[in-house]
Amino acid sequence: MIEDKNQQRTSIAELGEFGLISHLTQNFKIKQTTTVKAMGDDAAVLDFKNKQTLITTDLLVEGVHFDLSYMPLKHLGYKAVMVNLSDVYAMNGNATQITVSIAVSNRFPLEALEELYEGIHLACETYAVDLVGGDTTSSTKGLLISITAIGEVTKKKAVYRNTAKPNDLLVVTGDLGAAYLGLQVLEREKQVFKVNPNSQPDLTPYTYLVERQLKPEARKDIVKLLKDLEVKPTSMIDISDGLSSEIIHICTQSKVGCNLFEEKIPLDPQVISTCEEFELNSTTIALSGGEDYELLFTISQKDYPKIKANPNLTVIGHITDESEGMNLITRANQKVKLTAQGWNALFNKKED
Amino acid sequence: MIEDKNQQRTSIAELGEFGLISHLTQNFKIKQTTTVKAMGDDAAVLDFKNKQTLITTDLLVEGVHFDLSYMPLKHLGYKAVMVNLSDVYAMNGNATQITVSIAVSNRFPLEALEELYEGIHLACETYAVDLVGGDTTSSTKGLLISITAIGEVTKKKAVYRNTAKPNDLLVVTGDLGAAYLGLQVLEREKQVFKVNPNSQPDLTPYTYLVERQLKPEARKDIVKLLKDLEVKPTSMIDISDGLSSEIIHICTQSKVGCNLFEEKIPLDPQVISTCEEFELNSTTIALSGGEDYELLFTISQKDYPKIKANPNLTVIGHITDESEGMNLITRANQKVKLTAQGWNALFNKKED
Repeated sequence: MIEDKNQQRTSIAELGEFGLISHLTQNFKIKQTTTVKAMGDDAAVLDFKNKQTLITTDLLVEGVHFDLSYMPLKHLGYKAVMVNLSDVYAMNGNATQITVSIAVSNRFPLEALEELYEGIHLACETYAVDLVGGDTTSSTKGLLISITAIGEVTKKKAVYRNTAKPNDLLVVTGDLGAAYLGLQVLEREKQVFKVNPNSQPDLTPYTYLVERQLKPEARKDIVKLLKDLEVKPTSMIDISDGLSSEIIHICTQSKVGCNLFEEKIPLDPQVISTCEEFELNSTTIALSGGEDYELLFTISQKDYPKIKANPNLTVIGHITDESEGMNLITRANQKVKLTAQGWNALFNKKED
Repeated sequence: MIEDKNQQRTSIAELGEFGLISHLTQNFKIKQTTTVKAMGDDAAVLDFKNKQTLITTDLLVEGVHFDLSYMPLKHLGYKAVMVNLSDVYAMNGNATQITVSIAVSNRFPLEALEELYEGIHLACETYAVDLVGGDTTSSTKGLLISITAIGEVTKKKAVYRNTAKPNDLLVVTGDLGAAYLGLQVLEREKQVFKVNPNSQPDLTPYTYLVERQLKPEARKDIVKLLKDLEVKPTSMIDISDGLSSEIIHICTQSKVGCNLFEEKIPLDPQVISTCEEFELNSTTIALSGGEDYELLFTISQKDYPKIKANPNLTVIGHITDESEGMNLITRANQKVKLTAQGWNALFNKKED
């Protein structure tokens, strides 16, 4: 897309650093009452009064976390915000502000950065989050986005990873594995395109998968839902590296074990059919795929009646004593030790 | 330094992402009572009670902001923290936490990252700041450090850029231009070394300059000093891009003018002698050099008696009505319009 020679290309150098930031952020409006001062001073000033402050940060690197040959910049901007907001919601908190820093090489014209910021802007509008700071600099190669998300939570409402208890139920939102399969579909189309640049890919059978990869949504709605249902999870984490890896985080940090039931793992029909086509095991994909940005949490059994009818929530297992270990109970009723095979962003390959 | 073949080189891949983070951060201790939860969950949890939260972020890119051929990694880690803390102090706040994200290519062994984190650790210890989060990922080229600093300030104590008033005095801490000259000295030695790798540079005449470039200190002490002197500046900013650029920020945002007196600009004797040697104008260096990380602030004239005896503080001018413009009054008593020639990090060249 940014290779299209017919597009207008304005050199970033024409604007200078301060001009660039104010140009890119001119449409951002303040929505949060906690934002006292956004951009334009040495630091942003926020006022959470009697609430606790949540801080989380993520770095996305071109060629490691995203590939611009199939990731439109607007989607990339949106997704980069989602990745961070998801961490705030995983604390049962309310995301309120972000800072966005980008390092960008001269091969990107101003119009490319405008697209990126359109996506960031859309995310800020949709999730009522204020952009309050950042940094823009050049890189010697490629594009890098560093986002810090800030949120608020009352002390009583905050949910940690290390507080799951034996007999709690293990619950997941939405469905799993689609984002990873979406990436596989896009990678395949990229290879086809390399061989035959005139090929017209038909992505219709994979719409949901591709959307989950290119435009994930952070589960702000679940924080509200849990509040409405009057359920406070006993522990919570977001699913960025794959279900398996996140369950292991909760269990290890809470010093508990678990039984996860394979047959309960929620899968979209497109995940099932595409796994068949790609000859992949759908359970493996759900366990290790990553980038789903769903929430995984545990609840006390007494709260089960409150959540059981909800189509957004699936009970997939329960917490046990630490001595019982972390297990997957297969469809054939075999107990298999759960292992982390999450996507390792550090080296862009599966961990052993 | 990292090219030394005798050093032990452990591949980062051996540790994996989570192993790497916990290895690098194992010596970091929590010092702030506001830190409820540091690393290990989806987000850090902080509790500032009735104080306001300050957030600031900076991105440092290899080949743009630093050159590892003369910047030791430990110093780089220390400096990267200073750059961010400086922004918190410029709000008259107390820096309390940081998050550190790094993107690093495989050419860096574990030992290099350990050195970097040694510097970050030293900065955290010296400034009583807690490391509460971050992200570690691979890059396709070089090293990139993204730090977010978090601080606290009471609503009454916070000092902004846009609140200077006519007749206020313009005050600067420490002395200016040394960090930029230190960079020039190091660049020159690098060129000499390229021609003759056996040359032994004698940096003795430039000790102060090189230290200011490689190991700057953020002026936490000034925030305390101002409190002890019972002086609340009417506006404040830190000097990262050069005195001229920062004065223009304060004046433009406060809608005022100023008279800056050339003869009052504080210069270290090494700055004066080295400017002579390099045939540079020391005033230009102080105005445009950058990276001094001193504080520039304005005070009401009634506070002058409180600060006048202090060796850390120099009155360099005064604020005027906006209509009078922003002026440098030269030693020859000529009035020259002040222009921003600050170091433009975006393209690593002087702005016009």
